Amino acid sequence: MHIHVLGSAAGGGYPQWNCNHENSRQARRGDPSSLQRTQSSIAVTSDEERWFLFNASPDLRNQILETPALHPKYGLRQSPIQGAVLTNADVDHIAGLLTLRESQPLHIYATENVLQALARNGIFDVLNADFVKRIPLVLNQPNPLMGPDDSDARIVVIPFSVPGKVALWLEKENGEIQTANVNEDTIGIQICEADGTTKAYYIPGCASIPKWLAARLKESPLVLFDGTLWVDDEMIRSGISTKTGKRMGHISVSGDDGTMAAFSSLNVKRKIFIHINTTNPILRTNSHERKEVEKAGWEVAYDGQEIRL
Amino acid sequence: MHIHVLGSAAGGGYPQWNCNHENSRQARRGDPSSLQRTQSSIAVTSDEERWFLFNASPDLRNQILETPALHPKYGLRQSPIQGAVLTNADVDHIAGLLTLRESQPLHIYATENVLQALARNGIFDVLNADFVKRIPLVLNQPNPLMGPDDSDARIVVIPFSVPGKVALWLEKENGEIQTANVNEDTIGIQICEADGTTKAYYIPGCASIPKWLAARLKESPLVLFDGTLWVDDEMIRSGISTKTGKRMGHISVSGDDGTMAAFSSLNVKRKIFIHINTTNPILRTNSHERKEVEKAGWEVAYDGQEIRL
Repeated sequence: MHIHVLGSAAGGGYPQWNCNHENSRQARRGDPSSLQRTQSSIAVTSDEERWFLFNASPDLRNQILETPALHPKYGLRQSPIQGAVLTNADVDHIAGLLTLRESQPLHIYATENVLQALARNGIFDVLNADFVKRIPLVLNQPNPLMGPDDSDARIVVIPFSVPGKVALWLEKENGEIQTANVNEDTIGIQICEADGTTKAYYIPGCASIPKWLAARLKESPLVLFDGTLWVDDEMIRSGISTKTGKRMGHISVSGDDGTMAAFSSLNVKRKIFIHINTTNPILRTNSHERKEVEKAGWEVAYDGQEIRL
Repeated sequence: MHIHVLGSAAGGGYPQWNCNHENSRQARRGDPSSLQRTQSSIAVTSDEERWFLFNASPDLRNQILETPALHPKYGLRQSPIQGAVLTNADVDHIAGLLTLRESQPLHIYATENVLQALARNGIFDVLNADFVKRIPLVLNQPNPLMGPDDSDARIVVIPFSVPGKVALWLEKENGEIQTANVNEDTIGIQICEADGTTKAYYIPGCASIPKWLAARLKESPLVLFDGTLWVDDEMIRSGISTKTGKRMGHISVSGDDGTMAAFSSLNVKRKIFIHINTTNPILRTNSHERKEVEKAGWEVAYDGQEIRL
């Protein structure tokens, strides 16, 4: 199995379009310590031919251009992309579906909650139902990913709820905001070989790590995990927002109740932060926060990163 | 006044993600005769400080990154972008609104038809109404563009219906498809200085050029016009689609009923094709079709093109 990191930044990307924070400025001026990053998504293949996207980033058109493995190979209209698996309905995870138009057969996998959100937004009808099938994920069960020609892609996903919240743009419809619900709004994905061997966990959004989640991830070979913020009040401290990480449904990297602490005794073989916000100091290779995560055995995902399993 | 071409390709961009046509392949492999192009949008300013987007391309995040004039200049969150004017509800003209999230004050100008399409799609609520005002354009009247701080941007637009059709993703809701309606679904924009002097016409989608439209454009200083297809059956001839240009609401560049013929006696001072499809041979500088449009006095827009008026 082979994972290609298409995008490693949180919503808005790095740098975010209207952010003038020093972190964003460094990326914008091309500082080599602060690699630019597109919005988070990975592509996964088991045969180097058929690829599934995990989340569809608003930057998808550019991500495809940058990734020769995803270019059309034969005929006049074709794509190695077989479909997409969505972990929630955040704009940074679904807007890229709009790039996948033009009568290309595809399978879109998501929970019923997310599929309903797509169905309520007619703009996604640009993915013609004659070509694009929307398939509900069954939580806590192995879901074999099938190509649009109904061939078995030999990738099995086991989706499961993680603490999180409904997408920002759905908050209004949802009344009182619950920021750490465990339901179909935000899921993690256990990615397995066809024979059921677990190869990786992909959890780009997660509000907390309760004991059951820690137990599930223990001893696993690879976890790609929510690295949105360094500290919970990062956006407030830097003066750019009134929102905490908790309010946004994201656990912090640091601190006693943060991700590094929660993972410290889990013996996960390889740990990679992904979905990293434009304000997070771990984006800069020369920050002391970056050194701290590396000391704790974590990597910081970058666009174009190849992970062979 | 100053126009910056952010993107010059039609929906899907050049190359389009799943297109393996020779035109697209040349762009993908970086052939210098076949410059890559993002999806169509222009930015306009009258003071080099405050900019309005005309259409919001799915490639907007990348277009902003490539355009220093649109980077934030001071404070922690800021943008020279004051808002956007939309000519229809096509995905390639509105998906970029999703990039403009993050609590940035903006004004979105569009016809009632297009605003209603946005309102029916909750995903656009990611543009928080506390910051982003949606303002109906009044057709055939001067509409002064106002920044979100209610300052006069000293750009006046006169929107007017042109022959066209409803956006592809809205066809289902609209019953029988009319491909050359003259209503609020597709408009052209006459761009004027604050004193009313006409500087340019921006018409990235147009199904035909009736006499009244030709008369309106006559003697004008600059027209940026729909250059989607070379011939009406281009997509069918090349074997990649069953749709004609007419069916898509786009007049062709060539032919007796095409754009070059219609403009031949209009004495427009400067004529630029924009919104060019990945299959159109005028995209390649060494094609005979490109030479033909140049001989007829037309330019072919490219990303980053600066037009000073």
